[in-house]
Formats: sequence, structure tokens, C-alpha cells
Amino acid sequence: MHNKSCIMRMSKYRNVLTNLKLLNFSKVFSDNLADAAGESAVQVRKDFSVFGIPGNRRGGYLVDDLIEQLDKILGKDKPQKFIVVGVGNIGRALINYPGFAKSGIKIMAGFDNDPTKIAQTAEIPILPIDKAKEFIAKNSIQFAIICVPSLAAPQIVEILISAGIKGILNFAPINIKEREDCVIDNINLVTQLENIIYFVNAMQKPKSALN
Amino acid sequence: MHNKSCIMRMSKYRNVLTNLKLLNFSKVFSDNLADAAGESAVQVRKDFSVFGIPGNRRGGYLVDDLIEQLDKILGKDKPQKFIVVGVGNIGRALINYPGFAKSGIKIMAGFDNDPTKIAQTAEIPILPIDKAKEFIAKNSIQFAIICVPSLAAPQIVEILISAGIKGILNFAPINIKEREDCVIDNINLVTQLENIIYFVNAMQKPKSALN
Repeated sequence: MHNKSCIMRMSKYRNVLTNLKLLNFSKVFSDNLADAAGESAVQVRKDFSVFGIPGNRRGGYLVDDLIEQLDKILGKDKPQKFIVVGVGNIGRALINYPGFAKSGIKIMAGFDNDPTKIAQTAEIPILPIDKAKEFIAKNSIQFAIICVPSLAAPQIVEILISAGIKGILNFAPINIKEREDCVIDNINLVTQLENIIYFVNAMQKPKSALN
Repeated sequence: MHNKSCIMRMSKYRNVLTNLKLLNFSKVFSDNLADAAGESAVQVRKDFSVFGIPGNRRGGYLVDDLIEQLDKILGKDKPQKFIVVGVGNIGRALINYPGFAKSGIKIMAGFDNDPTKIAQTAEIPILPIDKAKEFIAKNSIQFAIICVPSLAAPQIVEILISAGIKGILNFAPINIKEREDCVIDNINLVTQLENIIYFVNAMQKPKSALN
């Protein structure tokens, strides 16, 4: 299996191609891809060769061809079904995020334990959390995004995995460990901002104050 | 200056402490912190020693003391002012995200170029984008979160930096490169999900199909 940072780069290249297509590019060179993705051209060619995408330093790549190949590698050639658990601000935004559909990511339903949030007949229905297990099985869903309070997250993870979920993106501000039976990634919004705050403050300190 | 992954870990420890405080912990050991943050205890002690937090392997750390020290290191001892540019689904969710206020992160205003989104008198006002420069200067704001469409993002970054912004978290699905005069982090939601999709699919392939 390829490593995580390699896949993250392949996904970045794919994303660059979407933007280049919006600008009507039909051809692209590894140098352009590298610049737009913030990587080196050598890295781009190396990543492509790992996945058997033939190099073409002189003629460039055809954007449509490359998109097709990357989509196959990334599992984007068929739609991928997700559920969102926890329909607060972030959960609702993700349910309505237009960028997902464009990328073959289909949000099938939201789940919440707050009865006032339930909307069974909405285009993307919001269902009670105790219906999750049945819904996951019936719709063969493998992926979930979690946006619940941090102390609820570990239990939700257990429920989802026992229902058959194999991949989770966790927005709850608590670190959920990767497991053998499920791929788990954590995004902590506060941590991301704190990181930026720290480095901006450090940039502005007089040099003598830096360790 | 300390490296990024070290700061991300310090922020994770800080976040673990918030959760332990919710569970009424008054003391914590490096082993507990390590487990909850998904790091090794050796790593925790090493990180703390880098920042001059004295080790205490036997007696543990007092949760409140440790929070105070980490907050000072992370620049959380005073509130940090942010603006959000682009008030779509994600932007609006971030403006209303309760986790920020608890962490000393204050969203001062949102900005958008859609007149129907403007709400000058809201508690967190939504203002026209052409008021951003003046607002940033008047309120001495250093930090911004960008949630605009990808092709608009590079120009928004230029406007913000010229107005005095020093740190940006970018949610637009386009990679914005870090610069000398501004700390920039990118979160690409689609890339995050694609990464999970890839690894789940790879886990399920017969072994012979793996490179």
C-alpha cells in the first residue's frame, strides 16, 4: 500500500487539474503541476511513476487523460457514499458543501440525536442516530464524517465501525486513533488555527526571544 | 523557531487537557497525555522539555498549571482576532463554531461579495469584501480564514496580506503557497476524504493487487 503523503499529493495534483480545467487548459507539464501543488517537478514525476503513469517531460500530459488516471487511482471513478454524524454548524455545512458532489463524494444522510434536527424527507435526510446502523447496512455505506462533541465521539466511532464503516474523517476536537479495521483521520480546527497563531507570533518576536 | 509538527503536538496536548478537565481530572501523567494524543510518553516529555516545562514523571502534572503554560506557549493567553472571508456553508459554520470562543479565538467579522449575505448589525457582522482592508487596520487583525471559491482565493490572499494579515487558514480547494510575509495553511476537504477513500479501497483489495 502506498503511503499517506503520496496519496495526499496525488489528490492535490487531481485538485490542481480541476482548477486548470476551469481555466481551459488541455495540456499540462509536470513543472506546472509541481508549482500549483507546491511540490517539485521531480516529486510529481516520481509519484506518477509509482502509479505507472508514463512520464512525458517534453510533450506534457493531456489534462483529461491525467484526470481519468488519477480518478481511478483515487477511487473517484465511481461515486463514494458518506454519512455525516452530528448536524451542528460544521456537520450541516458539510452536508451542503457543493465541492463534494463535483468530486464524486455523495453525502447520503445526516444523523443527530437532537429531535429538532430530524428531517426525514429532506433531499439529504437527517435521521435519528439510532437509525444509523440500519441505514449503513441497507445502503452499503463505508465512509462517515463525524462532527459531534468531543466526549461523544469515541462512542459514535464504535457504533459506526460495528455497523460496517471502514473510513472516518473526525472533526470532533478529540484525537481518535487509527485502527486495524478502520481508516481514521482527524481534523482539529482549533489546533489548525493555534498552529498559525504560534508561528505568526514567533515570526514577530525579537530574534533573541526565539529558542 | 520550533517546527510545525512540534507545535501541532503541543496544541494536541492542550486539547487533550480540555477534555480531561471536562472529566474533572486535576492531575495528569505524561503517559495519559501520550495515549490521548496518540504520541509516545517519551515524545511528550521531549516536547515539554523543549519549551522548558519541567518534567515530573512520578507526581504527574497539575492540569490547570499545564494548561496555563501551554496557553502561553501557543499564544492563547490573550484572545486572537480572526476574520472569515467567504460566507458560504463552511464560512458560516466557522463564524458560528462554538469551539473557537472556548479556545480564545475570536471571529470579529465575515466578508463576502454577495450583497444578500451582508448583515452589518449582526453580533458577528457580515461586511462587503471591499470593507475588509479598513476593518483589518482599524481592529489590528492579523489572522484570516478563507472559504471562497478556488479561483478567487489567490486574489483574496493578496488583498488580505496587503491589508496586514499575517496568518491564513485556507479552505478554498486550491493550494496557496506559504510566503515570507504570511503563514498559510491549507485544508482541502475533498483531498482529506479522497485520502480516506483510497486507503479503505486499498485495504479491501486482494493482496496481489497491491503495489
